Amino acid sequence: MKNIIVGQSGGPTAVINSSIAGVYKQAKKIGVKNIYGMVNGIEGFLNENIINLDDYLSDKNNYELLKRTPSAFLGSCRYKLPKIEDNKEVYEKIFNILDKYEIDAFFYAGGNDSMDTIKMLSDYAKENNKKQKFIGVPKTIDNDLPITDHCPGYGSAAKYIASSIKEIIRDNASFNKSRLTVCIVEIMGRHAGWLTAAASLVKGDDSEGVDAIYLPENEFDLNEFLDRVKTLAKTKSSIVIAVSEGIQTADGKFVCELSDDNRKVDAFGHKQLSGCASTLASIVAKETGLKTRAIEFSTLQRAASHLSSLTDIKEAEKVGMKAVLAANQGKTGMMVVLKRSKNEKYSCTTSLFDIHKIANVEKKIPNDWIDIKNRQLKKEYLDYARPLIIGELKPIFKNGLPCHLVRK
Amino acid sequence: MKNIIVGQSGGPTAVINSSIAGVYKQAKKIGVKNIYGMVNGIEGFLNENIINLDDYLSDKNNYELLKRTPSAFLGSCRYKLPKIEDNKEVYEKIFNILDKYEIDAFFYAGGNDSMDTIKMLSDYAKENNKKQKFIGVPKTIDNDLPITDHCPGYGSAAKYIASSIKEIIRDNASFNKSRLTVCIVEIMGRHAGWLTAAASLVKGDDSEGVDAIYLPENEFDLNEFLDRVKTLAKTKSSIVIAVSEGIQTADGKFVCELSDDNRKVDAFGHKQLSGCASTLASIVAKETGLKTRAIEFSTLQRAASHLSSLTDIKEAEKVGMKAVLAANQGKTGMMVVLKRSKNEKYSCTTSLFDIHKIANVEKKIPNDWIDIKNRQLKKEYLDYARPLIIGELKPIFKNGLPCHLVRK
Repeated sequence: MKNIIVGQSGGPTAVINSSIAGVYKQAKKIGVKNIYGMVNGIEGFLNENIINLDDYLSDKNNYELLKRTPSAFLGSCRYKLPKIEDNKEVYEKIFNILDKYEIDAFFYAGGNDSMDTIKMLSDYAKENNKKQKFIGVPKTIDNDLPITDHCPGYGSAAKYIASSIKEIIRDNASFNKSRLTVCIVEIMGRHAGWLTAAASLVKGDDSEGVDAIYLPENEFDLNEFLDRVKTLAKTKSSIVIAVSEGIQTADGKFVCELSDDNRKVDAFGHKQLSGCASTLASIVAKETGLKTRAIEFSTLQRAASHLSSLTDIKEAEKVGMKAVLAANQGKTGMMVVLKRSKNEKYSCTTSLFDIHKIANVEKKIPNDWIDIKNRQLKKEYLDYARPLIIGELKPIFKNGLPCHLVRK
Repeated sequence: MKNIIVGQSGGPTAVINSSIAGVYKQAKKIGVKNIYGMVNGIEGFLNENIINLDDYLSDKNNYELLKRTPSAFLGSCRYKLPKIEDNKEVYEKIFNILDKYEIDAFFYAGGNDSMDTIKMLSDYAKENNKKQKFIGVPKTIDNDLPITDHCPGYGSAAKYIASSIKEIIRDNASFNKSRLTVCIVEIMGRHAGWLTAAASLVKGDDSEGVDAIYLPENEFDLNEFLDRVKTLAKTKSSIVIAVSEGIQTADGKFVCELSDDNRKVDAFGHKQLSGCASTLASIVAKETGLKTRAIEFSTLQRAASHLSSLTDIKEAEKVGMKAVLAANQGKTGMMVVLKRSKNEKYSCTTSLFDIHKIANVEKKIPNDWIDIKNRQLKKEYLDYARPLIIGELKPIFKNGLPCHLVRK
C-alpha cells in the first residue's frame, strides 16, 4: 500500500486515539509512505481536510501522549452517507479524493453508524471496480456492536463508571440514617445497558455496591422502583441506584420524557436523552419524602482518559494494527473483531468479520446475565466485564494535570 | 495525654481521612494510649458510638489505604450544637462521656460549621474549668476558611475539577463548527468561588482552557452571559463555560431559582443549590438556538480520591499531626492553619489560630484576582492555586478498581 488514511466518527471514547496509534504503528512497520488522517471524519475528508500523521507521531513522546488523550484527536463527525442510488456524486467525490492522494486503504474508527459508512464505501468500490480497501475499526463505549466480544472504549468507560460509583457510594454513606440520601446515578446507553451494568463491578470486600441497576433491556415500572426504594429505606442509611438513560416504561416512554423537554433528535434520528436520574430523584422525593440526589456522568464517562483501562488501550491499539494488516492482505468491507480465548486467563485475539452483518445491528446484554428480581447482574456478566477494566496507564502529568496531544 | 478522640463533620473531601491518619500517627508518636474515633461526629459521640483506631490503623497497609479513601472514614454529621445558655444538658453529656473515656483532647476535622463546634466546646470547657483541649482541623473543598492559606481538601477537588474540565474540553471539541455545543459545567461553592476558579488552571500548551468562569463573588447578569455566548459562537467550534452553583443575579436570586424547585434548606439554614448549569443550558438553547449541554460534578468533586493531589494529602496529614502536638502543649480553642512561605518554591508550615476568629467567617476570592471583563482568573490566583494540585498518590488497585478502607 502506498498511502492510507484513517478517520474517527461518532461519539469519542477514552481510547479511540489508541486505535489511531495502532494504525500508524502497523502502517510504519509495513512501509506505508503517507499515513493520512482525515479531520472530522468523512465530513472533513469531503473538504480535503487531511493531515499527515508523521507531523505528530514520528515523535515517540507524542505517540505515548496520543494513547493518553481523550476524545477524537483527528476530530469526529456524525455524517450519514446517502444511499448510493440517491447521491452518486458524493461517492464519486470521495473516490476522486482517494485517487488524488493515491490512497489505497481507508480506516474508520467508530460505532454502529460509522460501520455503515464502511459498508457503503466498500459496496460502492466493489460495484465500481475501485481498488481501495475499507476496514472498520470498532470503537464505542456503548459496547453494542455485534460479533466482536466487546468494543474498545467500553473497558475504560466501565472502569471510570465503576470507580466513580465506588467513590459516590462512600460519599453517600458519610452520614447516618437520619440523613439518608437516595442517590440516583444516570449512565449512558440508549438501548443496551452495558455501561450501566458496569455499576455491578463495584461490589466487593470494600464496597457494598449499588442497591439496584436499571437497564434498558428491561421494562421500567415506576411502582416497582418506588417500592424498592421504600423497602431499602427501611434498613439502609445510604441508597445508591444506577439507571440507564435509556430505560423505558411498558408503553415505550423514556423515563426522562415524564418531565423534561429533551426530545430533540440527532442527525441519525436518535432521541437525545438526559435527565432520567433527575426525573426519578424528583419523583422519589415527592412520593417518599426522602432526600434525593441525581448524578449524571455525562461526557465524563467517555472522556476520562486519566482512568483508562490498560487492557482497553492495548486492545484499541491492536484492532488498529489488525485493520492495516487486513487491508494489506487485500481484505475490504470488514470490521476488526475481538475474539476471547476459552482459556481461564483472559486474552483476546483479533479477527475480521463481514461489515454487512455488523452495521446497524445492536448487541444487548443477554437476558440470562440479568438478575431481574434483585436488579443486579449475574456472575456471567461479572466474569465477562471484569478483565476489561484491568490495568492502568499512568497519565503524564504537567502542572498537576494530565497532558494531552492536540492538533495544531 | 492519656486518651484522645477525633471526629469528622460536614461534607467530606478526598483527603479528610489523611487528617485522621495524621492525628493517629502523631498520637502514636507521643505515646497516647487510646486513640478513639467518633462515628458520625458529635452526633455519634453523644450516643457513645466510639471506635478504637488501633483496630484499623495498627496495620500499615490500612494506614496507606486510609489516605486513599474518600469520604469520612469515621462517618460525618451536620449537627449544630445549641448555644450553651440554651441547652446546658447537651454540654454536660458531652463532658461526662469525655470523662468516662478519660479523653484529654478532642479533634474535629471540618469546615465552618465544625469550627463552630470546637469554639462552643472550648468555651464551655473554659467557663466550667474542664481540662480537655479542643482543636479544629481544617477541612473543606470550599477553601473558604479564613486565616489559613488554604484548606486541606481544596487542592484535590481543584485537581479533579481541572483535570475533568480539561477532558470535557477535548470531548466538546470533537466535532466541527456545524455541531457547536455550548457546554456549561456547574461546580460547587455557595458563596466563595474557589472551586469554580480551579477551571482557570486548565489553560496551557495543550488546552485552550474554558471560555469563561462565573463566580459567586460577582453579580450574574443573564444578558451579559448570553451576549458572551453569542459572541463566542461566532468564531468558536466549541464553548465550555464554568459556573458556580452559587451565582446570583443583582436582586439576590440564585440562577437555579429561575426554574427548579430546589429551595430546600439544610440543617444549618443554607439553601441547597443545584441545577444552575441546566437552567442556563435551557435558557441558552432557547435564546440562541445553539446546542447545549449541562454537566454537574456533584459529589464527584469531593469524593474523587483516585485523582487526589499529593500535596493536599501530605498537608492534610500534617494538619492532623499539628493538632495533636498543639493539644499536647496545652493549647485549646484553636484551629490549625497553613502558612505559605515567602520563598519562590512552594511550601507551607502549620500554625495555630484562635478559633473565635475563624468560626462562621467565610473567605472569598480577592476582587483583584478576578479578571471580570474576560471572566477569567488573574495570575495571582493561578500562582496561588497551581502548587496545591501538584503530585499524585497512585491508588491501590484491585480487580481494576481503587481500594478503600471501610469501617466494619
